[in-house]
Amino acid sequence: MVGGGPGAFIGDVHRKAARMDGQIELVCGAFDIDPKKSKQMAEQLYLEPSRAYGTYKEMIAAELKLPAGERMDFVAVTTPNNWHYPIAKDCLKAGFDVMCEKPMTMTSKEAKDLAKLVKQKKAVFGLMHNYTGYPMAKLARDMVKNKELGEIRKVVVQYPQGWLATLLEKTGQMQASWRTDPKQSGAGCVGDIGTHAANLAEFITGLKITGICAELTTFLEGRRVDDDVNCLIKFENGAKGVLHASQVSIGEENNIAIWVYGTKKGLEWHQENPNYLYVKSMDGPEEVWKRGNGYVGAKSASAGRLTRLPSGHPEAFFEAFANNYINFAECVRAKLEGRKPDPLALDFPDVEDGVRGMLFIETMLASTKSKQKWTAMKK
Amino acid sequence: MVGGGPGAFIGDVHRKAARMDGQIELVCGAFDIDPKKSKQMAEQLYLEPSRAYGTYKEMIAAELKLPAGERMDFVAVTTPNNWHYPIAKDCLKAGFDVMCEKPMTMTSKEAKDLAKLVKQKKAVFGLMHNYTGYPMAKLARDMVKNKELGEIRKVVVQYPQGWLATLLEKTGQMQASWRTDPKQSGAGCVGDIGTHAANLAEFITGLKITGICAELTTFLEGRRVDDDVNCLIKFENGAKGVLHASQVSIGEENNIAIWVYGTKKGLEWHQENPNYLYVKSMDGPEEVWKRGNGYVGAKSASAGRLTRLPSGHPEAFFEAFANNYINFAECVRAKLEGRKPDPLALDFPDVEDGVRGMLFIETMLASTKSKQKWTAMKK
Amino acid sequence: MVGGGPGAFIGDVHRKAARMDGQIELVCGAFDIDPKKSKQMAEQLYLEPSRAYGTYKEMIAAELKLPAGERMDFVAVTTPNNWHYPIAKDCLKAGFDVMCEKPMTMTSKEAKDLAKLVKQKKAVFGLMHNYTGYPMAKLARDMVKNKELGEIRKVVVQYPQGWLATLLEKTGQMQASWRTDPKQSGAGCVGDIGTHAANLAEFITGLKITGICAELTTFLEGRRVDDDVNCLIKFENGAKGVLHASQVSIGEENNIAIWVYGTKKGLEWHQENPNYLYVKSMDGPEEVWKRGNGYVGAKSASAGRLTRLPSGHPEAFFEAFANNYINFAECVRAKLEGRKPDPLALDFPDVEDGVRGMLFIETMLASTKSKQKWTAMKK
Amino acid sequence: MVGGGPGAFIGDVHRKAARMDGQIELVCGAFDIDPKKSKQMAEQLYLEPSRAYGTYKEMIAAELKLPAGERMDFVAVTTPNNWHYPIAKDCLKAGFDVMCEKPMTMTSKEAKDLAKLVKQKKAVFGLMHNYTGYPMAKLARDMVKNKELGEIRKVVVQYPQGWLATLLEKTGQMQASWRTDPKQSGAGCVGDIGTHAANLAEFITGLKITGICAELTTFLEGRRVDDDVNCLIKFENGAKGVLHASQVSIGEENNIAIWVYGTKKGLEWHQENPNYLYVKSMDGPEEVWKRGNGYVGAKSASAGRLTRLPSGHPEAFFEAFANNYINFAECVRAKLEGRKPDPLALDFPDVEDGVRGMLFIETMLASTKSKQKWTAMKK
Repeated sequence: MVGGGPGAFIGDVHRKAARMDGQIELVCGAFDIDPKKSKQMAEQLYLEPSRAYGTYKEMIAAELKLPAGERMDFVAVTTPNNWHYPIAKDCLKAGFDVMCEKPMTMTSKEAKDLAKLVKQKKAVFGLMHNYTGYPMAKLARDMVKNKELGEIRKVVVQYPQGWLATLLEKTGQMQASWRTDPKQSGAGCVGDIGTHAANLAEFITGLKITGICAELTTFLEGRRVDDDVNCLIKFENGAKGVLHASQVSIGEENNIAIWVYGTKKGLEWHQENPNYLYVKSMDGPEEVWKRGNGYVGAKSASAGRLTRLPSGHPEAFFEAFANNYINFAECVRAKLEGRKPDPLALDFPDVEDGVRGMLFIETMLASTKSKQKWTAMKK
Repeated sequence: MVGGGPGAFIGDVHRKAARMDGQIELVCGAFDIDPKKSKQMAEQLYLEPSRAYGTYKEMIAAELKLPAGERMDFVAVTTPNNWHYPIAKDCLKAGFDVMCEKPMTMTSKEAKDLAKLVKQKKAVFGLMHNYTGYPMAKLARDMVKNKELGEIRKVVVQYPQGWLATLLEKTGQMQASWRTDPKQSGAGCVGDIGTHAANLAEFITGLKITGICAELTTFLEGRRVDDDVNCLIKFENGAKGVLHASQVSIGEENNIAIWVYGTKKGLEWHQENPNYLYVKSMDGPEEVWKRGNGYVGAKSASAGRLTRLPSGHPEAFFEAFANNYINFAECVRAKLEGRKPDPLALDFPDVEDGVRGMLFIETMLASTKSKQKWTAMKK
Repeated sequence: MVGGGPGAFIGDVHRKAARMDGQIELVCGAFDIDPKKSKQMAEQLYLEPSRAYGTYKEMIAAELKLPAGERMDFVAVTTPNNWHYPIAKDCLKAGFDVMCEKPMTMTSKEAKDLAKLVKQKKAVFGLMHNYTGYPMAKLARDMVKNKELGEIRKVVVQYPQGWLATLLEKTGQMQASWRTDPKQSGAGCVGDIGTHAANLAEFITGLKITGICAELTTFLEGRRVDDDVNCLIKFENGAKGVLHASQVSIGEENNIAIWVYGTKKGLEWHQENPNYLYVKSMDGPEEVWKRGNGYVGAKSASAGRLTRLPSGHPEAFFEAFANNYINFAECVRAKLEGRKPDPLALDFPDVEDGVRGMLFIETMLASTKSKQKWTAMKK
Repeated sequence: MVGGGPGAFIGDVHRKAARMDGQIELVCGAFDIDPKKSKQMAEQLYLEPSRAYGTYKEMIAAELKLPAGERMDFVAVTTPNNWHYPIAKDCLKAGFDVMCEKPMTMTSKEAKDLAKLVKQKKAVFGLMHNYTGYPMAKLARDMVKNKELGEIRKVVVQYPQGWLATLLEKTGQMQASWRTDPKQSGAGCVGDIGTHAANLAEFITGLKITGICAELTTFLEGRRVDDDVNCLIKFENGAKGVLHASQVSIGEENNIAIWVYGTKKGLEWHQENPNYLYVKSMDGPEEVWKRGNGYVGAKSASAGRLTRLPSGHPEAFFEAFANNYINFAECVRAKLEGRKPDPLALDFPDVEDGVRGMLFIETMLASTKSKQKWTAMKK
């Protein structure tokens, strides 16, 4: 692992999620930009001191020297955004598979560069869009794929938060500091959570966003990145909708949610109560599909497979995260074992999602500057 | 009453709501464009046959001949949209106060004309934006007015329906037929329900919408008006947000809802469960304010006054509707009695809301045609 | 109307509900035990002064002297409980139909007496168990009747309130005063709201409660009646369950709700959000049935008929109340017109429900005193 | 670990939960009564073959032979109920700490025996009542402890399930088979889930149940244990309430929930949406306390400490389970290190809860047989 040092948020989530199913073991890491802190973290994590590295470059070099069966199998990149690209690139070049936090890079150019490298190296590359790891998001995707909603007409997707409604970054709070520093984060609300909303919408509908009319705003005086996103969207099939996100919507926590309406049915899903999918029809009662039931697995092999507990025993954020890891790990293992992975294990976000995400961010920024209503999604 | 004949929806709602509090009695009407049906409806309503009129012109003429204390006190206009203007105008000219359905007219020019007439005649004029009649919408408005939310930054307002997801108008269904006939309705989704969303947003925030970036869509081939609305909005104080509405969002019924976020707090309200207002803050639990409690009345005199039942005994659509009537009726009675009305009774939508509504519709249509991102709200 | 004077709660609800559909007109009344207040109320209600009576006996006598078409058609009894029996009896004896508040009498003996009288007089007698007037309660009842749940096994029914969690009756609050005075109310929580819970359970399941194991409690020192009810119940078919109610459950308002489970399906309904019925099955998603939809009317003619608004425009307490009135009124009118009423109009609680209610209260009191676990329901 | 072989449910949950925080490593096990299956499971779990034992006795003997720092630190007992006692006893006698599934034993005599042994051995003993591991249950407990609810008056606690609404045990389904075999399970619904409800009620209120009036039922013909529980309860301070549970409530999953009302406030919590605690008061809005916020930690050090994710990123069943493990592990480690554990780490269910559980089950069975209303809780 690179990143996830003392005080970091997402690195610890990666560790807990990766550990959950007993398929992945943390063996080494460069956890902090400060080598001392990195080693201190390694100790807390009960790692062998010899594999507590000061920098990721050191880690790559040292691990490469270990015999094949003993060296790390892949690298999880959980640093601030600006480090994703150089680290992922070096890992890939050294022949390691990569699980990377999102947004994948700082520019779409870098993103495409990584995509090319992944192809060349036949690497397994995972991008941690964790919300699509939820079983009910998989079910939604499969219902759309099976044409149960008919042709999609309308999509509303949102991700409101409220934690940056004040200038938290001026208080020294670590999460707020790097996320509002354009050099480390690239963009604000649009990159941090807007990308999740866009990814979720494309994932569930199976449709590409082709047009954007965006209005990014910075409400807090003195903030260096956007903290609010309002956006009209168009999809390749003519579907239309709205995407909005915010970090100044006081009282909202991580309220990413989506509504999709087709010519036959509609559906609704909320991350904060992730075990339910609401299915709406024209001439019958609304249905509440609940994770863990046989009827869910019958509609969606993925949703059925990525479930650990019987219905009514709620699963949540860590399990969704772990779902990406368990699929990713199966692909890494299959590669090591020289076999094809379980086809269902291919169901995790990858380098192409990373490219889409960077194109989305850049188009959002361009649209905000433009006086024209519609800006075509960059390619 | 004009309109509300056999098979009509909203006219019957007006009658039930107006009747509820025992302050208003239906004494005469021209209920249908077909004089026969009009008289048949009058009979069903136990009206005196002599006051069952064939046309509204006949009604005005005949009622004017009755002595002052016996003639009708005001006219409720509940016809399809294209009739609102001529009927309201004639009633006002004849000296009758008017309660009118929305949208008020077919054009903003007509709307301004009515506004002028109302002023000249010192008439009492009510516009039936019924959703702002809900006590919890009043409470929300008063919380914003009292600066409890701080300065408003973000607004999300929606009104999804699904009943026109098929070409219902081709089946002869009466409601669908006139509402999708541009000659009778003027516009589709934007006029029928988009106006309610805009009105609710301006009512609660106390802020005017100044900029619009709209995308109206007609999803059903062969439909003659828009059936879906996606829109970015700007308010006079710099607040921004999203307004979306739809008549093709399958499974949605009358899901008008609003989220407002300020610099101090946020709030959320849903018409389909109208007795609750959710208040969100940065550093305390979310609060569920419930209609009928003393703490509600303490914050909002209007919400406290316009409540008929103790908390936990739900009130709903009819009561919100009746709230507009009871305030309107107090103003009509005060005028008849030559006194000032209860100041709280001035709290109902009026001809100026009707002008705003028409300006909104026209700006939405103009913005949809425009390639520019932002279109200034017409004045 | 008898009762419903200044400051009364339920009398005003009766008036608004009876008025709603334009089928019932208030023509006279004895509204208060103080003749002066009674006349004052009559004036507020725009009644003819000649029909504002000082006492109910005066009212009966005077109305009887009016010609058949002009006198009142029925009497609504909305006084404190101890007056129900003498007033209803006198009205019935004088040949008037009666709509009576619940609990119907102070003893089951009185209740049976009234039942006999109703039979003798062929009177129309309504008992205001308003909660069974909700369309979704009708739908639930019809689903059970149609065997969609299979054989019923388990019932949980509750009615928690919190308004008597302090000694409100010592503050002079009118509602609290008479409801906690055993001479006026007969019993406390068990009579006031426990009866509603029992009535709802028997209504929806179509099954009689045959055994009771009750624990009534008075939590507030100095209170003269029970304020909390916990109870095991058995039904005639072997189904079992729990009934609990309270007036000291702080923060609860009128949270009457029921869960019924059969061999095939289960259902759940909450009065505070009355437009939804939740239907549960073994091998499919939970269903949310929403009032006003065609699929509701298709399952339950009663639920379809007793609906005034399209789905998504919520109906609530007054409409449920009015549903009992509109059915009752149809039966009164049919009697006056010498015809059979619409069979669906027979669907309102009547004198037999009143007898059941008194037997329930007496059994609850007896069981509370008993050391035996089960007390058979009195007959 | 003992138990948790192929097809087992709860053993796998123990493994995932214990693993989550990186503080506990599975080093050996006797996973199945069939030694072959046990070793097969060990292989799947990547254990050293030498520590894959055929029986728990073999495991104890072999581990004892390992040097102190290398042998297992404690044993998790996750077998069917009838094995809990002998295994736990042998482990304790051999000097190992124990984490045991519930119900702890088959009789209260065995339970008291274990309690005595734990005391003698100064062992750390955890009992897996996982629901009290939820942060919001901790918050509820601490609010009551801090007297924010005042004196407790009323408690309603439930645990409805529907999965045994048919004779699933006749189909060979493993979970159903042993849970309905009185020799393996001891009791049915009352032991499997009724104990959780009782434990949760005593945990949150801090009050002992002193009186029980129970009605256990077996609805399915041919079933050998109870499948439904209805019960009145009394607490040591005079509070009263209702406890009901069921395995035939079709459509219910694991809907354990509790409502507690005191003289000042009330609260409500539902396991299926575990991140929210509803707090109710007499004169203010209902509050929704959400896990992960600073205001939660400020009220409850335990709730604040046992939280891994920011608010809005839901935690669920595994994390609650893991909370018991992490506290238990800290106590085991402190013992090994010869220091006092973090006082907050003492917050997990222990052998005394196990004794309470067995007394509860035996009292429930006795009360069901009794004709007397109240049966005193056994001691």
